[in-house]
Amino acid sequence: MKVEMTEIKKRPIGVFDSGVGGLTVAREIMRQLPDENIVYFGDTARLPYGSKSKDNIIRFSRQIIRFLLTRNVKAIVIACNTASAQALDVVKEEFDLPIIGTITAGARAAVQETRSRKIGVIGTEGTIRSQTYTEVIRELEPEAEVMGKACPLFVPLVEEGFAKHHIADEVIDIYLREMKESDIDTMILGCTHYPLLRSRIMAYLGDKVSIVNPAYETAMDLKRILEEKGLNNDRDSLTKYEFYVSDAAEKFKQFANSILPYNVETIQQINIEDY
Amino acid sequence: MKVEMTEIKKRPIGVFDSGVGGLTVAREIMRQLPDENIVYFGDTARLPYGSKSKDNIIRFSRQIIRFLLTRNVKAIVIACNTASAQALDVVKEEFDLPIIGTITAGARAAVQETRSRKIGVIGTEGTIRSQTYTEVIRELEPEAEVMGKACPLFVPLVEEGFAKHHIADEVIDIYLREMKESDIDTMILGCTHYPLLRSRIMAYLGDKVSIVNPAYETAMDLKRILEEKGLNNDRDSLTKYEFYVSDAAEKFKQFANSILPYNVETIQQINIEDY
Repeated sequence: MKVEMTEIKKRPIGVFDSGVGGLTVAREIMRQLPDENIVYFGDTARLPYGSKSKDNIIRFSRQIIRFLLTRNVKAIVIACNTASAQALDVVKEEFDLPIIGTITAGARAAVQETRSRKIGVIGTEGTIRSQTYTEVIRELEPEAEVMGKACPLFVPLVEEGFAKHHIADEVIDIYLREMKESDIDTMILGCTHYPLLRSRIMAYLGDKVSIVNPAYETAMDLKRILEEKGLNNDRDSLTKYEFYVSDAAEKFKQFANSILPYNVETIQQINIEDY
Repeated sequence: MKVEMTEIKKRPIGVFDSGVGGLTVAREIMRQLPDENIVYFGDTARLPYGSKSKDNIIRFSRQIIRFLLTRNVKAIVIACNTASAQALDVVKEEFDLPIIGTITAGARAAVQETRSRKIGVIGTEGTIRSQTYTEVIRELEPEAEVMGKACPLFVPLVEEGFAKHHIADEVIDIYLREMKESDIDTMILGCTHYPLLRSRIMAYLGDKVSIVNPAYETAMDLKRILEEKGLNNDRDSLTKYEFYVSDAAEKFKQFANSILPYNVETIQQINIEDY
């Protein structure tokens, strides 16, 4: 039975992250593509991803994509910089649907923003160690100097509810002092949790540094790709958002409701190791 | 073919934790039972356990015990308070070998130590929420008052190398101020990572509070149980320690070598989801 294109257009976008951080990307997709349905998966049983190995990040990403395919998604957004940096190239080859990450979008925005061509990138250990941001920035702007810094405590600070606590400022000072004293004029928030620390990071770095949030750029990338492929959904008055996690749905729900512009009622827990 | 008792006595002790924290228990077993062989497993692909649900902690524990059985262990120590609090009762029923946790040993030591019968317990969200320490303490001393406090940032602080940084003191102040101002005279370090913050916690609480480290007591429990069952190994000049992790063996190795009294050469990575 031939599947009608109008049916395919109605299929949801799969969005995944290690936990709640990717909701900052989902939020941008909701704002910019209000007619698209979304299936979100947060891998809360195995978070955080940032300090884990490339092999495991690839394995986790494959399992999650297999799960999202059971939800009949038409495209996938890896809303996690660690997985984008370490697994995107591999899974793009393996699966037959559009898959986009956060790195290219963030790098492009930073290159457009910078005047000094000195760009800072903060992220997890995995993202920084992979040097993926540096490589993508250099492809776009070979003269660019990139200063990377891993900030492994930022994710637990956000996940444990310390984003607005003075302890966050202390940790920001530990990780970003060198960045502040350098001559970068643009900094990429290279982890989807970091926008939740954005105002404190901006206050710390001051006016001379522009902050790039790849979440916004990633949603714009998705829009462009859907339109190119004719996959964008037509006006849909029944837009549906579904949320799945691998653990602790209740905790995730509280977080989701503090981040998203509407009230999340139901979050289903699944065993991701079955996929 | 009948297995000789002398052969069974030579079999290793299985010790597991979500990551490096359980090495503080393994270290005590090495000190107090120097003739026992050990197989250690750290679930570094899925750490931390502390904020994850009971169902997943039970599932993770079952997989790890099945793995340890393939290494032919004669007894198992759950060197993780979260898993001891949430999974010990279940897995003890399901597997046919001695399995001990850290909670009973820690509770017993605290009850022996306290004079005021006011005892503090710090641990992960899972350990504190389970109320297991409170229940076990009350069984031993029905008059005891137990004050529990979850400290979810302590594990990431230790895992990310901040145990000796001033930021650790700030976080200790946030979590333990109420405990310090209370009239407890004894406090249980109810998470195997916390002994790595012990000197700072002691300095913060001052002389009036005795600190109980369940790692020592757990090793004593193991010794007693092995002797009761005639499973204790006779003098062995070739004691062997094996280490397995589910991720990032190199990072684990650095940590192990900073905690253990000898040099760990080889750490093998396995896929724990296969068990």
